[in-house]
Amino acid sequence: MDAILIIDIIGTFAFAISGVVAAVERKFDLFGTLILALVTAVGGGTLRDLLIGISPVSWMGDDVHILVIMSAIPIAYFFYTILLRLRKTFLLFDTLGIALFTILGIEKSLSIGLSPVIAVMMGVVSAVFGGVIRDVLSNQVPLIFRKEIYAFACLAGGLVYLGFKTLGVWEEFNLIFSVLVVITIRLLAIKRHWSIHFVPRT
Amino acid sequence: MDAILIIDIIGTFAFAISGVVAAVERKFDLFGTLILALVTAVGGGTLRDLLIGISPVSWMGDDVHILVIMSAIPIAYFFYTILLRLRKTFLLFDTLGIALFTILGIEKSLSIGLSPVIAVMMGVVSAVFGGVIRDVLSNQVPLIFRKEIYAFACLAGGLVYLGFKTLGVWEEFNLIFSVLVVITIRLLAIKRHWSIHFVPRT
Amino acid sequence: MDAILIIDIIGTFAFAISGVVAAVERKFDLFGTLILALVTAVGGGTLRDLLIGISPVSWMGDDVHILVIMSAIPIAYFFYTILLRLRKTFLLFDTLGIALFTILGIEKSLSIGLSPVIAVMMGVVSAVFGGVIRDVLSNQVPLIFRKEIYAFACLAGGLVYLGFKTLGVWEEFNLIFSVLVVITIRLLAIKRHWSIHFVPRT
Repeated sequence: MDAILIIDIIGTFAFAISGVVAAVERKFDLFGTLILALVTAVGGGTLRDLLIGISPVSWMGDDVHILVIMSAIPIAYFFYTILLRLRKTFLLFDTLGIALFTILGIEKSLSIGLSPVIAVMMGVVSAVFGGVIRDVLSNQVPLIFRKEIYAFACLAGGLVYLGFKTLGVWEEFNLIFSVLVVITIRLLAIKRHWSIHFVPRT
Repeated sequence: MDAILIIDIIGTFAFAISGVVAAVERKFDLFGTLILALVTAVGGGTLRDLLIGISPVSWMGDDVHILVIMSAIPIAYFFYTILLRLRKTFLLFDTLGIALFTILGIEKSLSIGLSPVIAVMMGVVSAVFGGVIRDVLSNQVPLIFRKEIYAFACLAGGLVYLGFKTLGVWEEFNLIFSVLVVITIRLLAIKRHWSIHFVPRT
Repeated sequence: MDAILIIDIIGTFAFAISGVVAAVERKFDLFGTLILALVTAVGGGTLRDLLIGISPVSWMGDDVHILVIMSAIPIAYFFYTILLRLRKTFLLFDTLGIALFTILGIEKSLSIGLSPVIAVMMGVVSAVFGGVIRDVLSNQVPLIFRKEIYAFACLAGGLVYLGFKTLGVWEEFNLIFSVLVVITIRLLAIKRHWSIHFVPRT
């Protein structure tokens, strides 16, 4: 489906830009910047592919992902201030990216016979572990472990997708609806500073 | 063997609880807590499976491990103080877990034709890398690199297991004896503050 | 080719020594030291093998790599001051190692049908990610993300190798020439403090 490829590319690019921004803030050199762009963009899908046993990992099958990620470097160089200003827009691209990565991850996992529970998990892993690896390589506690609710947005969208799929809901509708669930929850969470703390009863 | 499955589950649960405790101490949110419980419990076995080429990784073949790990979250929520008080008991479960994970790792590696040296190494990796990944994701130097001797407990138990296996010792006896070697060394090491420093002669 | 095996062993040993030195500086215990030696020496090749789908990963096929790495521990113990003094020499060994790892990585990737772009990337990954994983496990921002130019030395050597290969240049000549490109760039970069900062235009 061409629409998926397009959104995949947009999501990859948005993630790569977020990696470049993180690298600039940490004063990485050009190589470090490229690596951070790369792991942020493909880290989640790579971990998913390794875990479910797809090899070589998906993005290595063609050069498109690499070229998109490398193009993020000169674009960030020339248009850095504009990109920072566009962050709100990119947040939307980025959220669209994770929403789609969640559902692609679920479909891939189901297609090789994994259980729905594992499939939803792999969907979330696809969507969020790029950011986790970015933060680990930057020597920081992963952001999403502390205050980002977007893992739960992915989880909710993934469960909706899986539920509708089981019920036989029309596929295109299911895809669009589940993606909207992810986007809505994430944007609401950011706007209203939602977070789910875990403080055991003592 | 049902006994192995039961100990596997207990070990997984004990590791998951140790991940939850680490997450609470670092003020992670609910998602971070879940991830830390997960990687602590299955990280070592996952790395082993990736290295030796088993895919999808073992714990994804069924939902049992995931459900056990997820159950650690509400249990920790309601019984946190009791769990902290029970730490000694958990240390025993945990030690039982790593002992068994060591031997399972050795058996898996031998079964796909790897050398005994590599097999023992994979046994130790299975047992200790969950904790290593937990510490890396928490942005800390892995505990066992500094003062925990339990990697050597696993190594010793693994070597005993392999030696007895080569000598044709009765399998059930070998399993129990090797597990006891791991437990004894670890508990003694904790009690007597054993550690093996590496300070080159200068 | 026996020459490759010999340089592979020298490179592995040099990387292992660099891991031991890093562990001593961070006061790791014996186990931590062994792990750091191991990941520094085989981490890059392991990541490459996982990504391109070779399993079990290459160094597990025999015991040579493990024994070489383990031998680095007693050697470092007895000859630590000499090793520090030999660092300049080791820098040469080490650079020879990364140069060869780059080309081995490229060849392996091409041999399983990956594109030249991906192959060069896997060559660089083979050469530099051992050091990245060493730094992550030591809870530090990877050195090469900030000031080491050797990733670009590998990249340059890899591109030269690939170009000459495409042109049908005599293989042995190509190997030696590409390795010299890597070594020359790296040594010049260290001597003249070259680095490629990435500071976006604002």
